[in-house]
Amino acid sequence: MITTVPKGYAPSEFKALTFHDAVPRFRDGSDTPRAYLERCLEVIAEREPVVQAFAAQNPSGARAAADESTKRWKDGRPRSPIDGLPIGIKDLLETKDMPTQMGCAAYRDNFPKRDNAAVWALRQAGAVIVGKTVTAELGGSHPGPTTNPFDPARTPGGSSSGSAAAVAARMLPAAIGTQVGGSIIRPAAYCGNIALKPTQGGINRGERQATSMSTHGVHAGSIEDMWQIAIEIARRAGGDRGCLGLFGPSSPPPAAKPARLIVLQTEGWSALDAASRGAFEALLEAMRRAGIALLGRHDHPWIEALEQSVATGRATCNAITSWENRWATRNLVDQYPNGVSARAKATLEKAEAMTPDDYRAALMERATAQLRHQAVGPLADAVITLSCPGPAPLWSGDAPGQPLAPRPTGDFVFNAPSSMLFAPAVTMPLLAVDSLPVGVQLMGQQHEDARMTAMARWMLDAITPVVAA
Amino acid sequence: MITTVPKGYAPSEFKALTFHDAVPRFRDGSDTPRAYLERCLEVIAEREPVVQAFAAQNPSGARAAADESTKRWKDGRPRSPIDGLPIGIKDLLETKDMPTQMGCAAYRDNFPKRDNAAVWALRQAGAVIVGKTVTAELGGSHPGPTTNPFDPARTPGGSSSGSAAAVAARMLPAAIGTQVGGSIIRPAAYCGNIALKPTQGGINRGERQATSMSTHGVHAGSIEDMWQIAIEIARRAGGDRGCLGLFGPSSPPPAAKPARLIVLQTEGWSALDAASRGAFEALLEAMRRAGIALLGRHDHPWIEALEQSVATGRATCNAITSWENRWATRNLVDQYPNGVSARAKATLEKAEAMTPDDYRAALMERATAQLRHQAVGPLADAVITLSCPGPAPLWSGDAPGQPLAPRPTGDFVFNAPSSMLFAPAVTMPLLAVDSLPVGVQLMGQQHEDARMTAMARWMLDAITPVVAA
Repeated sequence: MITTVPKGYAPSEFKALTFHDAVPRFRDGSDTPRAYLERCLEVIAEREPVVQAFAAQNPSGARAAADESTKRWKDGRPRSPIDGLPIGIKDLLETKDMPTQMGCAAYRDNFPKRDNAAVWALRQAGAVIVGKTVTAELGGSHPGPTTNPFDPARTPGGSSSGSAAAVAARMLPAAIGTQVGGSIIRPAAYCGNIALKPTQGGINRGERQATSMSTHGVHAGSIEDMWQIAIEIARRAGGDRGCLGLFGPSSPPPAAKPARLIVLQTEGWSALDAASRGAFEALLEAMRRAGIALLGRHDHPWIEALEQSVATGRATCNAITSWENRWATRNLVDQYPNGVSARAKATLEKAEAMTPDDYRAALMERATAQLRHQAVGPLADAVITLSCPGPAPLWSGDAPGQPLAPRPTGDFVFNAPSSMLFAPAVTMPLLAVDSLPVGVQLMGQQHEDARMTAMARWMLDAITPVVAA
Repeated sequence: MITTVPKGYAPSEFKALTFHDAVPRFRDGSDTPRAYLERCLEVIAEREPVVQAFAAQNPSGARAAADESTKRWKDGRPRSPIDGLPIGIKDLLETKDMPTQMGCAAYRDNFPKRDNAAVWALRQAGAVIVGKTVTAELGGSHPGPTTNPFDPARTPGGSSSGSAAAVAARMLPAAIGTQVGGSIIRPAAYCGNIALKPTQGGINRGERQATSMSTHGVHAGSIEDMWQIAIEIARRAGGDRGCLGLFGPSSPPPAAKPARLIVLQTEGWSALDAASRGAFEALLEAMRRAGIALLGRHDHPWIEALEQSVATGRATCNAITSWENRWATRNLVDQYPNGVSARAKATLEKAEAMTPDDYRAALMERATAQLRHQAVGPLADAVITLSCPGPAPLWSGDAPGQPLAPRPTGDFVFNAPSSMLFAPAVTMPLLAVDSLPVGVQLMGQQHEDARMTAMARWMLDAITPVVAA
């Protein structure tokens, strides 16, 4: 037994798994990627029955890859700084050695035997693909079986449920997630991860280019691993088609203290629980004490304009994404009438009531919001806001015969802004409320991924997490 | 026998099949969509053995759809002006009632039972899906079996080979094609079609969003049908994800005479055969006589700058597209080592030698060219250039043991500009060289699809085609 199941979450006690600091021991032979992997597999064996982070696992393939990596480190010829890194892949992405079932009954046993571009890049960098992590159905809102590692009665968030939970449960040092509305930053925040939702188009999505706001991103236990993984993928597979791809240094950027930050309320502020609001305000106060200037919606009309644009962000995101998924979902429902959840069918129904002009109107809302975001760029170094509306909600499954609960994986009200703005966002586990993690995010202008990472690194080093009762 | 196989092409004699002018007869009951379809099927039966335009046909499904359309017209309740239109779908697009084999052995018998978004929209508008038209392998350069309807020893062009040939052979009044480099405009030009390659993103590509320059477009026998089909799709399925989609009137725009045109040479000019060059220059002279002012590269430095940007257009397009297809093609070759042509493998090899920075450099070339194209917008109403470098080349298949012939479906040297500029282009059959069609195209600023259609309509009405010996 190498780990104990935590009772709740305490920032001062929880220590996530990290990889970058194992590398010196791979070099001197006191540890190996195979041994690192075996420790991960032990934790998985112990915690998976309750956490249920995985849709598929490939321990034999992972062991073979870890052995090859061990040999490369021994020979002094690792392929990259993440050679030997055990990683999970969200089950929306194809991997040639495991099924891609997308949390959807219609895709049961779907096994395309192809590698997503990002997976291909990870293998080229020497990473060890351990398993496919559970996704909410088709990346939407209908949840999979995964539970929150800090309280099994709660959701881990979604749709990157398994990726967030695997990192929180110390099963893996990192996992790949994807975000369209809030599917990386929110589950990462509910699970105490550090995570990057890159600038739109930053990491090559390969076959998954159907929606205009989707991005691949990284969940990790440390900011160093988060950046290293993102840049190793981008250096090999670049960004999405038509996009310049992730820019930044080939190793984690050093910590950089922000001088000025914009505090964005978003449409989530008014309904926020008092404890989470108090914790966030205490964090802001600590940052002021550290000499960081904070600006809000009343300090500049352009900040107010941005707040107004993102105040309908959920509706804008939902309109855009449901329209973009309309034909694929209709084909799926026609082929597999019982293979798609009632939640997904309800979204399809809304999409099929839309016209191209409705979609255009939503695109124009999004473009206006992006313009307003650009306008506030010179006012501060970054935007700061919560990553989720308080701690992960309780979730015990749909009750037969009852109306569907809305948002069973939590609300993406704090995530719609970075999605619709195509903006890089880094979430940090800087708050604990009711013994559960609550994330705080930095959001930058497009292509400022490395700058956000550097400032998040400073905050993780310099700011003590706030614990609310 | 309702048609005779033409000996060569004479613009004064060739009359393509049209649909819009049959509609009054559907209204008064003197013709029906079913009877129209039967006439198409007779021509297909007669000419298909030599032309080989189809990868799959669905006559029973088409007859059932045509019968339903016949009833709707009889009841005075057609779904749209193209209700009952028999149409072919390029075999890169999924249709739920026929296989999608993409001209690629690896996809033999692939039958996904899904409708592409554009196909879905066509069915909603009442169109009759007759068959899947042959594509060059995966939309690339390795040709299928289709021959040029005006000379079976010649290529119909590619990759929309079957769509162009089916319209030229009077099998169908229209067909859907797709273009990444030159795959709509060039085959249309070699086959005497009228065709629209819309503004990038104008028509929803559905599942086919993997490359940044691909567009769905329309091959037709008349400009009225061309526009009506494009706008009926866009009104129902909109544009690509993130794009505003095709703008324009809900019926074909009236003819509009251009006042000033920019004559773009492109990198194709220097190697152009003398007869085609002479024919094009005679056409320009006729336009001058009609009172249209023509500007060239020596008349304005911004036109010269645009010429310089498109002078490396083929290389830029090839770099971008081969990189974007890299992972999909690698997966396909790994899964089906003998299922992909040597031509496609050679393209993959080039793509795998590229880095993300090479791709970025090509994107920046493309963006620079787009900026230069915008800059010339105010100088004239449109750009005019050839649609293909002379008549369709001879093609008799690869010779065993010999090096692969380059560009067996013809050269996209005159098509790279509209592709890389994301610009709408309309090709018109205004030249005949060696008794074969040669197209001329108008190219506009992004979203000027309707304006280009209106000016093309004027040219088709007012300018007599030039016949070179």
